[in-house]
Amino acid sequence: MIELRSDTFTLPTPRMREAMASAPLGDDVYGEDPTVRELEELAAHVCGKQAACLMPSGTMANLAAVLAHAGRGEKVLVGDESDLHVYEAAGPSVLGGVAVEPVPTRPDGTLALDDLARGFPDDPDDPQFALPALLCLENTHNRCGGKVLPPDYPAAVRRFADERGVAVHLDGARVFNASVASGVPVADLAAHADSLQFCLSKGLGAPIGSITAGSAAFITKVRRLRKLLGGGMRQAGVIAAAGIVAIEEAGRLAVDHEHARLLAKGLAGIDGVELADPDVPTNMVFFRVTDERFTHRAFVDSAAAKGVALAELGHGRIRAVTHSGVTRADVENAVAVVADVLREGPRS
Amino acid sequence: MIELRSDTFTLPTPRMREAMASAPLGDDVYGEDPTVRELEELAAHVCGKQAACLMPSGTMANLAAVLAHAGRGEKVLVGDESDLHVYEAAGPSVLGGVAVEPVPTRPDGTLALDDLARGFPDDPDDPQFALPALLCLENTHNRCGGKVLPPDYPAAVRRFADERGVAVHLDGARVFNASVASGVPVADLAAHADSLQFCLSKGLGAPIGSITAGSAAFITKVRRLRKLLGGGMRQAGVIAAAGIVAIEEAGRLAVDHEHARLLAKGLAGIDGVELADPDVPTNMVFFRVTDERFTHRAFVDSAAAKGVALAELGHGRIRAVTHSGVTRADVENAVAVVADVLREGPRS
Amino acid sequence: MIELRSDTFTLPTPRMREAMASAPLGDDVYGEDPTVRELEELAAHVCGKQAACLMPSGTMANLAAVLAHAGRGEKVLVGDESDLHVYEAAGPSVLGGVAVEPVPTRPDGTLALDDLARGFPDDPDDPQFALPALLCLENTHNRCGGKVLPPDYPAAVRRFADERGVAVHLDGARVFNASVASGVPVADLAAHADSLQFCLSKGLGAPIGSITAGSAAFITKVRRLRKLLGGGMRQAGVIAAAGIVAIEEAGRLAVDHEHARLLAKGLAGIDGVELADPDVPTNMVFFRVTDERFTHRAFVDSAAAKGVALAELGHGRIRAVTHSGVTRADVENAVAVVADVLREGPRS
Amino acid sequence: MIELRSDTFTLPTPRMREAMASAPLGDDVYGEDPTVRELEELAAHVCGKQAACLMPSGTMANLAAVLAHAGRGEKVLVGDESDLHVYEAAGPSVLGGVAVEPVPTRPDGTLALDDLARGFPDDPDDPQFALPALLCLENTHNRCGGKVLPPDYPAAVRRFADERGVAVHLDGARVFNASVASGVPVADLAAHADSLQFCLSKGLGAPIGSITAGSAAFITKVRRLRKLLGGGMRQAGVIAAAGIVAIEEAGRLAVDHEHARLLAKGLAGIDGVELADPDVPTNMVFFRVTDERFTHRAFVDSAAAKGVALAELGHGRIRAVTHSGVTRADVENAVAVVADVLREGPRS
Repeated sequence: MIELRSDTFTLPTPRMREAMASAPLGDDVYGEDPTVRELEELAAHVCGKQAACLMPSGTMANLAAVLAHAGRGEKVLVGDESDLHVYEAAGPSVLGGVAVEPVPTRPDGTLALDDLARGFPDDPDDPQFALPALLCLENTHNRCGGKVLPPDYPAAVRRFADERGVAVHLDGARVFNASVASGVPVADLAAHADSLQFCLSKGLGAPIGSITAGSAAFITKVRRLRKLLGGGMRQAGVIAAAGIVAIEEAGRLAVDHEHARLLAKGLAGIDGVELADPDVPTNMVFFRVTDERFTHRAFVDSAAAKGVALAELGHGRIRAVTHSGVTRADVENAVAVVADVLREGPRS
Repeated sequence: MIELRSDTFTLPTPRMREAMASAPLGDDVYGEDPTVRELEELAAHVCGKQAACLMPSGTMANLAAVLAHAGRGEKVLVGDESDLHVYEAAGPSVLGGVAVEPVPTRPDGTLALDDLARGFPDDPDDPQFALPALLCLENTHNRCGGKVLPPDYPAAVRRFADERGVAVHLDGARVFNASVASGVPVADLAAHADSLQFCLSKGLGAPIGSITAGSAAFITKVRRLRKLLGGGMRQAGVIAAAGIVAIEEAGRLAVDHEHARLLAKGLAGIDGVELADPDVPTNMVFFRVTDERFTHRAFVDSAAAKGVALAELGHGRIRAVTHSGVTRADVENAVAVVADVLREGPRS
Repeated sequence: MIELRSDTFTLPTPRMREAMASAPLGDDVYGEDPTVRELEELAAHVCGKQAACLMPSGTMANLAAVLAHAGRGEKVLVGDESDLHVYEAAGPSVLGGVAVEPVPTRPDGTLALDDLARGFPDDPDDPQFALPALLCLENTHNRCGGKVLPPDYPAAVRRFADERGVAVHLDGARVFNASVASGVPVADLAAHADSLQFCLSKGLGAPIGSITAGSAAFITKVRRLRKLLGGGMRQAGVIAAAGIVAIEEAGRLAVDHEHARLLAKGLAGIDGVELADPDVPTNMVFFRVTDERFTHRAFVDSAAAKGVALAELGHGRIRAVTHSGVTRADVENAVAVVADVLREGPRS
Repeated sequence: MIELRSDTFTLPTPRMREAMASAPLGDDVYGEDPTVRELEELAAHVCGKQAACLMPSGTMANLAAVLAHAGRGEKVLVGDESDLHVYEAAGPSVLGGVAVEPVPTRPDGTLALDDLARGFPDDPDDPQFALPALLCLENTHNRCGGKVLPPDYPAAVRRFADERGVAVHLDGARVFNASVASGVPVADLAAHADSLQFCLSKGLGAPIGSITAGSAAFITKVRRLRKLLGGGMRQAGVIAAAGIVAIEEAGRLAVDHEHARLLAKGLAGIDGVELADPDVPTNMVFFRVTDERFTHRAFVDSAAAKGVALAELGHGRIRAVTHSGVTRADVENAVAVVADVLREGPRS
C-alpha cells in the first residue's frame, strides 16, 4: 500500500529505533529523564524559546497552550479552517471553559486583521461579551493545502495582538515543513508568537509526541496542565530519543516537498482530476475528481483497492500527503494508479 | 427622554405593580409559591408545553435549556447572529463544557439546512469531532431586525433534527411579538421545538423574569440546573405576579408594531438616513446614517442630547425599539429629533 | 401553620410591599436602576466594603464570589458542614472547574487552622496538587446551630490566609443574625474577609435576593460572572426596594433570637426531646427526638398534622427556625404541639 | 543509588527494549497499530472485560473512566486517601464538571458502606444536591500501605452500587500486585467493577502507559474522551510492545513482595524506626522515624546522601517501594544505610 492519507503514518527510522532502544531513562514525572531533558532543551533552542515540554500528542500540546493563555470565560480566536478548531473535539471549550470564536480563514491560511478585530467587543466592560485572551495561527496550514504563512504576516499579527493585550499561539504541527520550504529557521517563524507547538510524529517521523514551547513561566503552567490532563509520562525518554533524531533529520522534509510537487504534476495531467491549488508549497496535494462517475468515497475506495491510500479532507477535496514512507517510485506509481482508476471507472 | 434603545426598558404597569403588591407568596425553592405556580401553569399552557419554569433572566433561561439538552462535550449549533451566541458571554461553553458552533444567519433569521448539515461530522464515530445534540433558533430574530421566522421553517428544522436525532430549542425572547405580528399562537410557533424560552421583561413589560418551557422531564432537569446556576428565588411570586399580567396583556404588542412602522416611515423620509430593511415586521427599526459627517457614536450622542435614546447594534446599524413606554407622540417626536440632528450636524 | 422549617419562608412586610410598589426603576442590566444602586451602596456601606452587587440568590452570591477568587484548576477550602458545600449542588466544581476540598467543621462552626494547613501541598510546584486560592467561612453557621463564630477567629484566619497568599470569603447568609446577637457591626464581622455574601431573603425578610460585597475590582468581576450565570435582572429595583427595608429593619432579628431561646426552653422541658446544643445563639433550635416510637420522619409528619412545620437537617436532628412570621404565641403553641405529639405517639 | 521512592522508576527490561525496537507499528489514532491492538486485547482478556484502551498515564486512565461514567454535575465518591483524589490535580472537577466527594478511607483501604451511603441525598429530587453516579475503589491501596482489599469487599460494594444505580470504577494502578499477593486473578479482582485502570509503568516495569478496561460501549466513550484530553498517540505500538512484555512477566512481582517483607524485617530491627504497619502485603513499606533528632526531610536527605532514595508520603510517613530495579542486595544495603543514618544522626 502506498500510504498518502497523512504524514502521521510515518514509521520510525532504524536510527530512531536504535536511539529508543539505547536511550538513558528516568522518571520524567519527577523530571529525571535525561533523554526527555535533552529533547526539551533541543526543542526550546530550535524554537527560539526559553523552555519546551514534551506532550503525548499535538492535541494536548495545543490544548495545554490554550488553557495556559486563556482562563475560564476568556475567548480564543481561531481560524475556522484550523486543525485546532476542526479536529480537536472542542477541547478548550469542553474541558477548559474557554469561549472559542472561529474567524474566516483566507485561502493563504491567514486570518484577516479586520476579522480578528471583530472578535473584540467595542466595550470591554460589557459583561455580555467574553474577552479575547489569545489568537491562534497555523503554519503550515493543513486545510489550506500545506501553505506557508506569508513572511510578513506573523509580525503584523504580533502588532495587532500587542495593541490589544492578547497572546499569540502558533499551531506549528508542521512548522518544520514551513521552515524547510521557506528556508527560514523555525525560531524565526515562531519569533512573533508567545508559544508554539510542533509535532514530532508527523513529517518529522517520530512515533509519538509533540512539543509545546514558550517562556519559562508559560512552560511551568503547561507542565501543570499536562499533569492535569493526564499527559505526564514516566520513562518518556523512549519516545524522546526518537524525537531528537526526528529534529536532527528535519532537513529531509525537502524530499517530501519535491515528491509532492512531482505528484501534483502527475495528477494535473490526468483527465478527471483537478488540482485544488496549482501551488504545492510543502508536502500536500489537494485535488478534486471532476469525473462525474465518481463520488469521493468511490474514488478513494477504488484507489485503495489498487494500493493507493488517499483521504477526503473537507469541501469535496482529496488530500495526498508525502512523507518519509513515500519514495519517488511510490509517487510515480500513485499517479499511474489514479490514472488507471479514472480510466476504468468506479469499482462496481 | 424617549427611550428607544431596547424594550428591556419597559416599566411595570400600574396593574402589574398592584398584582405584585397583593400576590399570595410562598418559598418557591420549596415549590410553595402559589403565584409562581400559577404563572408557570399559564406559561406552559400558552407555550403548548407540559411544563414551564420561571427564571431570573433570558440568559439563564437559554443557558439552562442548552445544558439540559447537551451534555459535556456535545455540540450546539447556533446562528452566528443570534442573541444566544452574541450576547450571553459564551455560557454554554464556559460553564457547561458545551462546544458551540456558529452557523451563518440569513437575512430572514433562518439558518440554512445545508449549513446546519455541515455541523454534523461525516463519521460520528470519529472522536476528533464533537457530536451535535441541539439546534437553536430565534423568533423574532433581534439582529435580523425583529423578523418573524418564515411559517414553514420551524417544521423543516424539526424534520432535519429528527433525522439526525438532535433537539431543537427556540430562543423566543420576543416570541409574543412574533405571535402578535403573524396571528399565530405562541403554542403553534413553538410546536416544532422541544423547548423554548421567552422573556417577561422585554416587550411584555414585566420587570424581571423569563420562562423556559418544555416537556415535564425536561423542566425537571431545568429546575436542577436553575438551582446549580443560582437562579432559585424565594418569594418569587412578587415577580411572577407581574409576569401573569404581562402574558394576559400581550395583545398590546400590536401597538408597538404599529409604532415601529410609523417610526420607520418617518425615518425613511429623512435625508442621510437609510433603513437597513424596508420590512419592519415587529417592534424594531434598524437604520444607517449615511450622512458622512456622523460616526455612529456621534449620531447616537447627538440624538441623546436632544432626548432620544438609540443604540448601535452591530454592522454599523442603529436600532430603535418601540415598547409600552413609547407613545405615538414619542415616535413623532423621535422622527423630528432625528431630522433635526441630521440637519444640524454632529455636536461639536 | 406555624412555619419553623426555615427563615427563608419569611413574607415581605407591608412596608416592603409598599416600597416595591412605588420604587423608581430602570434597566439594571444597563446599570440604570436607581433603587438597585441605592441598595448596593447601602449594602456596601453596611458591609464595610467598597462595592456590592445584587444577586438573585445566596447560591449565586457565593458561586460568583468563589469563581471571582479562584480560577480554573485552583482549590477552595470549605467546611464540610458549610451550606456552600452541602446545599449548593457543587457549583464551583461543576460550573467553574474549581477543586473543592472539604475541611472538618468543629462544633463552633470554625475550621481548625491545622486542618486548613493540610489543604496546602508541601511543594506548590508539584503539579499533582491543585493550589488553594480561597478559604470560605460561614457566620452564623447554619448546620452548627446558628452559631456566631468566635470573635477572634476571623482575624486568625486572615493571618493564616495572608501568610499563604489566599483570599477569604465569608458566607454571611445570616451575618445580620450574628451581628444582632453579638452586638458587633456587620462591617466588623466582615473586616477580615475579602468578600462576603448575605441574604436579604432569610431572616431579613425580603422576598428575593442576596448581596455580594468586596473591593471595587472584585465586584466588577462578580458582575461579569453574574451576567454569565444568568443573574442579570432588568427592573430589579422591585426587589431591591424590599431589600433596603430589610436592611433598615435588621434590628428586629433580636426578637427572633428571643423567640428561639423561648422555644428551646420549652422544648427542653418535654420528655423525649433533647436539645442538640443547650446554646441557642441566634434564631435556630436543633433538637433530637429520643422517644423511640418516632422516626424523624414520623415526628415531623405528626407535628405538621397538628400545624407545626419542622425540618430534618442532617445527623438525625430536627431544626426549628424563628423569623418574622413567628410570634411569641406561635412559639408557645409550637411547644404545646410538640408536647402533644410526644404524649400521643406517632400518627398511625 | 538504591531507588526506593516509587515503582514508577522501573526501567524497561532488555526484553522490553527489544520488543519496542522490533514491534510492528501503525497509526493508532486511525486504529491501525497492530501492537496496540494486541496489547488492548491481551489487557481486556486479563481484566475479564470486553475491551481495553491504552492511555499515556494512569491519571488519564482514571480521568477518562470517571468522565465516561459521570456527566456534568454528577457526583463521584472517592476515598479521601485514594491516589485518584490526592494526586491527580482534581481533574474530574476541574476538567469535567464532576462533583468529587471524599469519603473516609479505613486503614485496610476500604470505604465503609455507611459512609458511602451518606453521599446519597435522602431526596434525589432535591436540586440542592449533586447526584452520585460512581464509586471509586483502589486496589492495592497505596496510601494504606499497599494493602490488598479484603476478598469479600468488592462484591459488597457491587451490591450497594446496584441498589443505588451507580457504577463502580477500580483504580487498579497496582492491581497486579494485588493479584500476585492474593493469588486471585486480576479478572476476578475486577469482576465487581464496571471499569478499571492499571498501570503498565509501575511495578510491571513498562516505560509508559496505562490501560482502561470495561464494556465495549464504555471503552468507546473512553476513546472519545482520550482524544479530547489529548491522549491519542500515533505509533503507540512502541510503548505497547513493552506493555505486552510487562503483563506477560507480571509474575515477577512476587519477588518485589518478598523484598518488601525483607526490607520491613530489617527496618523493624533498627532503633528509631517504627513500621507504620507490621503488615507488608505487597511491595511497599511505610515507616516512621521516631528518633527525634530527625525531621522527615532530614532523614530522607541523609539517606539519599548515602545512596538510598526514599519518599515522604503523608501523615509523617516514609515510604520505601520495591520493584524490578531493586535487588535483594539492594534491600540489605538499604537497611544498613538506614541503620547508619540513625546511628550517625542528621547531616549537619
